[in-house]
Amino acid sequence: MPDQRFFGRPEPITLGELAGRIGAELSSDADPDKSIEDVAPLETADANHVSFFENPKYSDALASTKAGAVIIANAQRERAPANTALLLSDQPYRSYAAAAQLFYPIVPIDAPGISVACHIDASATVSEGCQVDPGAVIGAQARIGARCRIRANTVIGPGVEVGDDCDIGDSASLNHCILGAKVRVHPGVRIGQDGFGFAPGADGHRKVPQLGRVVIEDDVEIGANTTIDRGAGPDTVIGAGCKIDNLVQIGHNVRIGRGCLVVAQVGISGSTQVGNFAVLAGQVGIAGHLRIGDGAVLAAKSGVSGDIPAGETYAGIPARPVREWRRISVMLGRMVKRGRKEQG
Amino acid sequence: MPDQRFFGRPEPITLGELAGRIGAELSSDADPDKSIEDVAPLETADANHVSFFENPKYSDALASTKAGAVIIANAQRERAPANTALLLSDQPYRSYAAAAQLFYPIVPIDAPGISVACHIDASATVSEGCQVDPGAVIGAQARIGARCRIRANTVIGPGVEVGDDCDIGDSASLNHCILGAKVRVHPGVRIGQDGFGFAPGADGHRKVPQLGRVVIEDDVEIGANTTIDRGAGPDTVIGAGCKIDNLVQIGHNVRIGRGCLVVAQVGISGSTQVGNFAVLAGQVGIAGHLRIGDGAVLAAKSGVSGDIPAGETYAGIPARPVREWRRISVMLGRMVKRGRKEQG
Amino acid sequence: MPDQRFFGRPEPITLGELAGRIGAELSSDADPDKSIEDVAPLETADANHVSFFENPKYSDALASTKAGAVIIANAQRERAPANTALLLSDQPYRSYAAAAQLFYPIVPIDAPGISVACHIDASATVSEGCQVDPGAVIGAQARIGARCRIRANTVIGPGVEVGDDCDIGDSASLNHCILGAKVRVHPGVRIGQDGFGFAPGADGHRKVPQLGRVVIEDDVEIGANTTIDRGAGPDTVIGAGCKIDNLVQIGHNVRIGRGCLVVAQVGISGSTQVGNFAVLAGQVGIAGHLRIGDGAVLAAKSGVSGDIPAGETYAGIPARPVREWRRISVMLGRMVKRGRKEQG
Repeated sequence: MPDQRFFGRPEPITLGELAGRIGAELSSDADPDKSIEDVAPLETADANHVSFFENPKYSDALASTKAGAVIIANAQRERAPANTALLLSDQPYRSYAAAAQLFYPIVPIDAPGISVACHIDASATVSEGCQVDPGAVIGAQARIGARCRIRANTVIGPGVEVGDDCDIGDSASLNHCILGAKVRVHPGVRIGQDGFGFAPGADGHRKVPQLGRVVIEDDVEIGANTTIDRGAGPDTVIGAGCKIDNLVQIGHNVRIGRGCLVVAQVGISGSTQVGNFAVLAGQVGIAGHLRIGDGAVLAAKSGVSGDIPAGETYAGIPARPVREWRRISVMLGRMVKRGRKEQG
Repeated sequence: MPDQRFFGRPEPITLGELAGRIGAELSSDADPDKSIEDVAPLETADANHVSFFENPKYSDALASTKAGAVIIANAQRERAPANTALLLSDQPYRSYAAAAQLFYPIVPIDAPGISVACHIDASATVSEGCQVDPGAVIGAQARIGARCRIRANTVIGPGVEVGDDCDIGDSASLNHCILGAKVRVHPGVRIGQDGFGFAPGADGHRKVPQLGRVVIEDDVEIGANTTIDRGAGPDTVIGAGCKIDNLVQIGHNVRIGRGCLVVAQVGISGSTQVGNFAVLAGQVGIAGHLRIGDGAVLAAKSGVSGDIPAGETYAGIPARPVREWRRISVMLGRMVKRGRKEQG
Repeated sequence: MPDQRFFGRPEPITLGELAGRIGAELSSDADPDKSIEDVAPLETADANHVSFFENPKYSDALASTKAGAVIIANAQRERAPANTALLLSDQPYRSYAAAAQLFYPIVPIDAPGISVACHIDASATVSEGCQVDPGAVIGAQARIGARCRIRANTVIGPGVEVGDDCDIGDSASLNHCILGAKVRVHPGVRIGQDGFGFAPGADGHRKVPQLGRVVIEDDVEIGANTTIDRGAGPDTVIGAGCKIDNLVQIGHNVRIGRGCLVVAQVGISGSTQVGNFAVLAGQVGIAGHLRIGDGAVLAAKSGVSGDIPAGETYAGIPARPVREWRRISVMLGRMVKRGRKEQG
């Protein structure tokens, strides 16, 4: 059970209501009035908990689970123990996420109100239902939408716009940017500072004024200590529904399409464009002025120095089609073992 | 046109004055009294804007530009449309940077003065013309030079010295360090914390006191969330005019020469020395106790485990001369394609 | 000599007392009443300083040192100059660390007391002997142990527990976490924010509530701007005595054993388990759900996509036994040189 100091105590819900709310079908032999009190993994769930099964790797855990209910695909139902109520779903993990959100709602607001210990410029606008924590600083002409949380010691610069229902974590800083609705910014994120723009020269690298903004569309989530520079002239844009992990670097003028997943420590150089629903795995690096196609997947640690076609998976430094990269890796392993034998 | 909420409205300037201020020569057929109101890219500029041309990739954009004036090299002037005034320069991009700075001056100060909501120790010195924003904390015996901006929620530790005309971004922390003049520190930068110094052992890794400082010379710029540890005994030193991007790690005792460019997510291990005007591209990693020669270039994602000669370009893991690295890459591609054919 | 503005002036100590306190044996010809005033490197030490010798690379520096005393292994004593007192130790660097700590004690507290400019919730507990600096924010029900330092602008979230004698650096943020005793957190560290947990889908990636915590055991040190996400259900755990460098990313549910060294910019993906006393060098990336054995060593920039056996050293992308990786590297160098000759 989650630590109540941090997560509170969830409200129980009946199986029937749970099924309806998460869009699952309750197995006919289950009691719709049975009360479910919490979510839990298969291994530790008891008769009051709902769990889920999707990855076949956990078949043994499913077979021996004590969970009162399990969210599962219809095709897999025979694997579940007889005494367990089934919540049938085509996408068990997504349905589980919905169930967990029922027990532990994700709402930025804790206790609405403006701390006396924050610093809001007289010309800034903070809409109704917001919570602004101690040490937050909101600059001139900034506009904060309704029901936003601005957490402790965060700095919202002059003129910045934050849409409705946003959650801006502790000690972040937002400058020269426009955020849509339901954007979640984790602690220590830096948005809108100058891009790395210099006209180099032996008598000093001359700074090029960075005159664009950062535009973050709706439903974007940005991980802790990630940095997103503002555009040099055009804007830097993060498309709706993108999920960005921790310690990611996004350079000036980058445009990322909708629904992309950008894993920790990725770096995207200036002016590169990423299509919709691309996946950039951990520590990928992408050079500047490139195009990454819709749905492209870049394996962890890839180094990308050319355009990537839509829908393809690439890996390696320099990045190649993943099959080619795997073959090279196997080939090298064989060569070095052969070489060793010949010497031996 | 840049968003006026963030960048204000620039003052117009005549072509003649513009030419003089950026050191360009106005073409003889141009009207020196013509008013220029803003900078803009070739594609979007109108008759009141000045643009520039340097990269041949943009020849088409030049041919069809509506810009009132274009900064261009004399050798390229024939490519420009007839109706456009030309500002002739040997280094068009550098001249453009100067022009953009005329329209959008880079000055740290917004509105001089000390916020009532910051915390300055009674023994600290803040010189004339500074702006200290809400939530900034300045420790005992710290000294801030003239005309500095200390932005919101930044922490300047005890004894730290900051030179004149510096701009220290939001939520940064500076400890055990000495900064020269015109240093620009972006949000979330961490300077002067302990280096990673331990005498390892099975009964616990014993901490080695870190007794050096960080010395940052004039005109250095340091990107968001970058970390620079102080020396273990000697100082960590960043040479004059270096430009460091976001999320870079610089270990204890590192010495970087003048005018280096260090791109995002680079890591430099302890006690390594980098010469003058070296370029370290994104995500490069350099082991400890090495020497990187003057003007050396390390390609993105290189892993450097030996000294690098001056003026050479290296790439790969482990880093090799870039030509060798490219040949290996091509060779592997051919081998794997041949192998596939032989199997097929 | 360390800059007194930052490190103060150490108290002198006699050679005899120094030997006893660091567990070294004083050479019989040395004067135990001789006063030692400071630590210094071999090259710059004078007759009042103690230095140390361990790395044979510094034999010349030893031969010509002016140090009043040198910590050295008995087997090496003949290399030292005749006029230098010897402090004989099996582990000279560890003994030097102890000596340096005598001159420059590592204690978080500067001047105990609670700043009037910090914000502590009425329901939080701050134990005796703590120092809380300006701008620090401590949330509801949080508990801070005895003799802790909570530095400027740091945020301790609701319910967080911090053990005794901890030092939490400037501008850090701690949420949903439990810290043991003597934990040292450097500036800008982010602990306990949501992990990167989404149930992906074309109609939007659905957020999975992150219901675990971060548990940091005793004597852990965490470098600047490092991020550690809380568990998704189980906890994220950092074992006692681990030393973690700057800009490291640790994903949800990761468990790291005792005494590991994790160098800068390493990334560890969700649910991976690392054994005791493993060493992860700079910029290593480890995929999710893997096991890294006790005492394993991963060379800098390795990309780990499979389990690593205990006690082995791996390198490369994908990571292989280090000897195999070195042979491949040498082989490729030879092949490309041969290829060039054949062409030439």
